[in-house]
Amino acid sequence: MNDVHQLLRSHRSIRKFTDETLTDETVAEIVKSGLCAATSSNLQATTVIRVRNPEVRARIAELTGGQRYIETAGAFLVWCADMHRTRRAAEMAGGTMTSGMTEQFMIATIDVALAAQNAVVAAESMGLGICYIGAVRNDPQTVSDLLELPRDVYPVFGLCLGVPDQDPEVKPRLPVEVVLKEDVYSFEQEARQIADYDETMRAYYRARTGGNKQSCWTEEIASLVDGERRPHMRQFLADRGFEMR
Amino acid sequence: MNDVHQLLRSHRSIRKFTDETLTDETVAEIVKSGLCAATSSNLQATTVIRVRNPEVRARIAELTGGQRYIETAGAFLVWCADMHRTRRAAEMAGGTMTSGMTEQFMIATIDVALAAQNAVVAAESMGLGICYIGAVRNDPQTVSDLLELPRDVYPVFGLCLGVPDQDPEVKPRLPVEVVLKEDVYSFEQEARQIADYDETMRAYYRARTGGNKQSCWTEEIASLVDGERRPHMRQFLADRGFEMR
Repeated sequence: MNDVHQLLRSHRSIRKFTDETLTDETVAEIVKSGLCAATSSNLQATTVIRVRNPEVRARIAELTGGQRYIETAGAFLVWCADMHRTRRAAEMAGGTMTSGMTEQFMIATIDVALAAQNAVVAAESMGLGICYIGAVRNDPQTVSDLLELPRDVYPVFGLCLGVPDQDPEVKPRLPVEVVLKEDVYSFEQEARQIADYDETMRAYYRARTGGNKQSCWTEEIASLVDGERRPHMRQFLADRGFEMR
Repeated sequence: MNDVHQLLRSHRSIRKFTDETLTDETVAEIVKSGLCAATSSNLQATTVIRVRNPEVRARIAELTGGQRYIETAGAFLVWCADMHRTRRAAEMAGGTMTSGMTEQFMIATIDVALAAQNAVVAAESMGLGICYIGAVRNDPQTVSDLLELPRDVYPVFGLCLGVPDQDPEVKPRLPVEVVLKEDVYSFEQEARQIADYDETMRAYYRARTGGNKQSCWTEEIASLVDGERRPHMRQFLADRGFEMR
């Protein structure tokens, strides 16, 4: 296994950072490497907003349920799906954009995710730690207002970057045998393999919390997918111009 | 700039591969490194199907508008957003899953994209070339039928992997200054910078096609976003259980 595989396999989310602020140059280099990821038809529907304003960072930390590392990380970036630039580009060439297609929403969202993950690998290769903040979608309208996002742009997730001030264990993943299938979808051996993974995760939670967290993967999933999750997303996206036609 | 940044910046899509088939072990190692990417609340909503059956590969190549490297690449993977496993996991813990939320669709799709991009970096670190195949969404129902995907699973994109048999140039990206903003969204300098990028892309297309392709970025974008793109996606997703509530 080469160094890059080893780097990828050592990923864990970092939620405690030293007070070292990342320089403009470091952030630009990380984002630049991020943008070299594949992008659908070279659409490049990604915009990254580095939030420096401490009041805005504090407000976003609050909206995400009190994730204070949003305030303390060496940099906090909001990764946005941007079809506004696309519209402007089309207009520059004398064209117009048909907006609101589900496919467009997908393309833009996937573009952002690919670029962000490349940026994460770039950052981790420099010894930095990262934490994705999906919870910017708890109140995406307020986040959009704070960042003055125009129509056709929405915040996909936040990303904390910085010098790690903790060294957590790598969280075990589902065995590759569960995830990688041959020719057709199947769910034969999976129940047994998932039961084994449950035991792995039970031991992981127990060890990480000094015995306080008694749970396993399937129990965590059951509580996650029970009930409506962020039911405002559909209307929020429609209001931004992503009508999902 | 370290080796990993250099690796990321040397990415280009490969559309011509030698006839070397990737071993099971190589593909498993690549996917395993892929799965170490961040995943929302450890949901791990990714399933990867390696398509070996030559008839199925030929059929998918046809559906994607004749991308024959789908048939000839060292491996062809279809990356699926999988909420079926999630449902089964919840049921194993005695729970139930509320499906059809827009947010769930986003989480699963982003999970897949992050894992796939990690796998891409892993593959490229081994000297392999890759090409994403978004065009599996040209006819996602037929692809789903061919791969026997159950409800709550959909094919996000395909991925060709293999030993490169070409050495194309890296495609220039938008300058980082256009993409990376400070505190708030803006579009002030961007029009000028995009006009400069247009000239870069015009030269790139000209050089790559021996002068045959006379175009630039904004013109390409204008033709891409004019009209409805994959208008079947909304209904297809709803039929799969992703109703976007």
